[in-house]
Amino acid sequence: MEFTVNQLASILSGQVKGDGSEKITMLAKIQDAKKGQISFLSNPKYEQFIYTTQASAVIVSKDFVPRRELSATLILVDDPYISFTRLLEEYHKLISFQKSGVEQPSFMGETSVIGKGFYRGAFSYIGNNVKIGDNVKIYPHAYVGDNVVIGNDTIIHPGVKLYADTRVGNNCVIHAGTVIGSDGFGFAPQEDGSYKTIPQLGTVIIEDNVAIGANTVIDCATLFGDATIIHKGVKLDNLIQIAHNVEVGQNTVIAAQSGISGSTKLGENCLLAGQVGVAGHLVIANNTSIGAQSGIPKSIKEPGQKLMGYPAFDVMDYFKAYAVFKKLPEIYQRIRELESNVQNGEGKSVSVDQ
Amino acid sequence: MEFTVNQLASILSGQVKGDGSEKITMLAKIQDAKKGQISFLSNPKYEQFIYTTQASAVIVSKDFVPRRELSATLILVDDPYISFTRLLEEYHKLISFQKSGVEQPSFMGETSVIGKGFYRGAFSYIGNNVKIGDNVKIYPHAYVGDNVVIGNDTIIHPGVKLYADTRVGNNCVIHAGTVIGSDGFGFAPQEDGSYKTIPQLGTVIIEDNVAIGANTVIDCATLFGDATIIHKGVKLDNLIQIAHNVEVGQNTVIAAQSGISGSTKLGENCLLAGQVGVAGHLVIANNTSIGAQSGIPKSIKEPGQKLMGYPAFDVMDYFKAYAVFKKLPEIYQRIRELESNVQNGEGKSVSVDQ
Amino acid sequence: MEFTVNQLASILSGQVKGDGSEKITMLAKIQDAKKGQISFLSNPKYEQFIYTTQASAVIVSKDFVPRRELSATLILVDDPYISFTRLLEEYHKLISFQKSGVEQPSFMGETSVIGKGFYRGAFSYIGNNVKIGDNVKIYPHAYVGDNVVIGNDTIIHPGVKLYADTRVGNNCVIHAGTVIGSDGFGFAPQEDGSYKTIPQLGTVIIEDNVAIGANTVIDCATLFGDATIIHKGVKLDNLIQIAHNVEVGQNTVIAAQSGISGSTKLGENCLLAGQVGVAGHLVIANNTSIGAQSGIPKSIKEPGQKLMGYPAFDVMDYFKAYAVFKKLPEIYQRIRELESNVQNGEGKSVSVDQ
Repeated sequence: MEFTVNQLASILSGQVKGDGSEKITMLAKIQDAKKGQISFLSNPKYEQFIYTTQASAVIVSKDFVPRRELSATLILVDDPYISFTRLLEEYHKLISFQKSGVEQPSFMGETSVIGKGFYRGAFSYIGNNVKIGDNVKIYPHAYVGDNVVIGNDTIIHPGVKLYADTRVGNNCVIHAGTVIGSDGFGFAPQEDGSYKTIPQLGTVIIEDNVAIGANTVIDCATLFGDATIIHKGVKLDNLIQIAHNVEVGQNTVIAAQSGISGSTKLGENCLLAGQVGVAGHLVIANNTSIGAQSGIPKSIKEPGQKLMGYPAFDVMDYFKAYAVFKKLPEIYQRIRELESNVQNGEGKSVSVDQ
Repeated sequence: MEFTVNQLASILSGQVKGDGSEKITMLAKIQDAKKGQISFLSNPKYEQFIYTTQASAVIVSKDFVPRRELSATLILVDDPYISFTRLLEEYHKLISFQKSGVEQPSFMGETSVIGKGFYRGAFSYIGNNVKIGDNVKIYPHAYVGDNVVIGNDTIIHPGVKLYADTRVGNNCVIHAGTVIGSDGFGFAPQEDGSYKTIPQLGTVIIEDNVAIGANTVIDCATLFGDATIIHKGVKLDNLIQIAHNVEVGQNTVIAAQSGISGSTKLGENCLLAGQVGVAGHLVIANNTSIGAQSGIPKSIKEPGQKLMGYPAFDVMDYFKAYAVFKKLPEIYQRIRELESNVQNGEGKSVSVDQ
Repeated sequence: MEFTVNQLASILSGQVKGDGSEKITMLAKIQDAKKGQISFLSNPKYEQFIYTTQASAVIVSKDFVPRRELSATLILVDDPYISFTRLLEEYHKLISFQKSGVEQPSFMGETSVIGKGFYRGAFSYIGNNVKIGDNVKIYPHAYVGDNVVIGNDTIIHPGVKLYADTRVGNNCVIHAGTVIGSDGFGFAPQEDGSYKTIPQLGTVIIEDNVAIGANTVIDCATLFGDATIIHKGVKLDNLIQIAHNVEVGQNTVIAAQSGISGSTKLGENCLLAGQVGVAGHLVIANNTSIGAQSGIPKSIKEPGQKLMGYPAFDVMDYFKAYAVFKKLPEIYQRIRELESNVQNGEGKSVSVDQ
């Protein structure tokens, strides 16, 4: 694969400044790029590198004004980062070894159907009455239980387990080892101290354009007709816990190792950092941002808040309180001195009164 | 499947009030239920729905006195929630597609035995010298290592990995992706700063009636003859870490993403919320309740405590302390004012003395 | 297997005190050991047991002076713990059922090669253009993607998933369910609130002598030519998250359920306890020790610190501050009394001035 700068600029609807006939074979970071490679400049912190980079071309903002001479050909665009990402995507499509067909042995129930352009890896398992759309890739060791429905253009990575009745939309990616549809954690306490398992009869619905990382778990809902729902555009990282009957709102992003307890509804466009915990039966407003390791024990009604701590409150207030927390031993000493001084001070006042 | 209300009442030893010949085909929540469905009323918060529900029947407490007219037939029982759960269970058994037999290809060592009524999914692996009881289901991609013993009526979900020598009791459920018997995390520091692996030679014992969620990990014990033990009736959620030589007491319940460090003994009937961490070599008393995200660095001797924080202490005290924590910046300001006032106050007192 | 104490002492270069002809068949803890077994005494807390143990032999420090009579034969060595560990290792090698050859069905791409002494379990998958060294064990349900390279003497446990292009060194152990090379969590926000996936084109490099626990996830780097790197001698526990472009320095040890965010570089010989979170784009100095559940939001420049809290600071200072935190409600009350007293005190002072 070889492109000229002019060709790439045309893909990006960008304007070329310099030699448009330079040949490009690879993408690279601006500090590492070599001849024949294209890079981008988005964060001003990296501007220094544009004057020394060996990249043959650099994608820059159309507002970029060089402060010194530079040798690379420039492609001027609205947003260099997004443009670079687009090139990455195109490149990714080109270089991806496009798996297709069936590797043997694999298993598919007789009543199941799969559309055009599929890949079914060796040791993949598709149960009965499964419906799978076009251009779907089912990697080795993936398990697709009975009655599962999967849309078009979705990728099921190795060892993913979809329990029976799970529904996955179009253009989703689910990474290795993730489990979807396992039983919700529901047990009724008995008089003798033991617990009786409450059967978990609901399902999981994953809408379109959802990305799910590796070794994440999404439990099914408890009752028939109910579903744990991951709405469209949601991005879940690795090792996340989504309990039964949770709903994650459109375009919400959750970082690794966070956990959402049963029946909680997360709003749209929320951002949860890593290792966050959200208690059960809550409603979290849209655009809520939650700092790493925070805990949310109550519903959040006002949208757009940035929260931190456990229980979480305003992130700036948290850090102010924490700054004082670090001084607590010294402050405690000062309080004791105050108490001692006031004791003495009162003594003096009293003596004056006599 | 279709039952009359009278038939269901007889299963539940309940008393019918209304038309016992109503036909029931499905279970549903009281706010969603339609004609032909049965629901229940347990939490008084939901009482309003009983007057408007379209359910053909509702299971209620024998103490329930309607405040208004209602159309549903009632079944009066001691505990409506438990009764509903029982119906769910029965229904679950009826509708579950009862897998049985062997799907091919699958693997079973020649010296291994499995009882009656089994299911062995495609791509399931059973090593050598394995002993499996009756009515056990081994789903696709499950791995059962050499010398493993599994009791009756146990379900091993897809992709579960049981290392060699693991023992699993009767009537257990282990969800997808869970790993049991992996090496404990033991390394001896060497003089050059590197670590030498300490061989992990013990096993894991899972007693009867244990439920384990998805993608959880239980490490084996370190020495021969030792075992990490999950006692009977324990319920473990998803993504939990149980380290080598841990013992989890009977009927203890642990929520998702909690971790128990090596050689710790958790008591019976404890409740650990999500994302809790317990340090190694501790003994935790029976009936201890630990709040979400708490950390336990020391043994808990007194049973029945409710703890919170890191290190955890009494949950009510934690929340009181945390309430003050949130005010720390303001409090710090007040202390500085106090110091300033006392300084001035003393000055005045002193001047009086002159 | 049966050895005399003399034979074992010779393996350990130790000195025998007592009957060197005693026969040993097993290793055990000093409090549990029986006749025919060997144990060790390292921690002085356990000294009491050496006088009552039924072990036929005990490995002790050459400085050990018995305070009472004892019946066991002693082997005197420099470090009893390390010596015992060595015996465990030898024993482990002897008793391990050495799997070898291929179990069927299994899958290996035609262009892939594997060295001598291998084991390829049933349902293991090896893609195309894979290069695997000598004495490598690939357990059932392991997935080895295209172009993966694995060194000698490495063990890939059941259900491990190595994405395409991953490199694993010599003498590594990767436990069941671990995923290596999944996509980094990178999404570019779009104007309509949705996110566009940034293709993840880098790889993961696992150097020699690395041990990785079960159900851990290591994401690949974002750009071509970049790699997430786990340097030699690193020990990772279960359920750990290592994000894209992270570098973990030589001989660093990370306990279960910790997470390292994207592009962070952990130094050498660091110790991270369980459930720690480290933010992205940080540099953590060598020999940093981080307490359980701590959060690290900033780079750590000074090596050798012991940190705790969120954000973490010196562990001793943390516990001192936390001790005051627990008293905050009482302290707050004392401040209010101070304010009241100073108010009154000032009143008195003022009255005196009149």
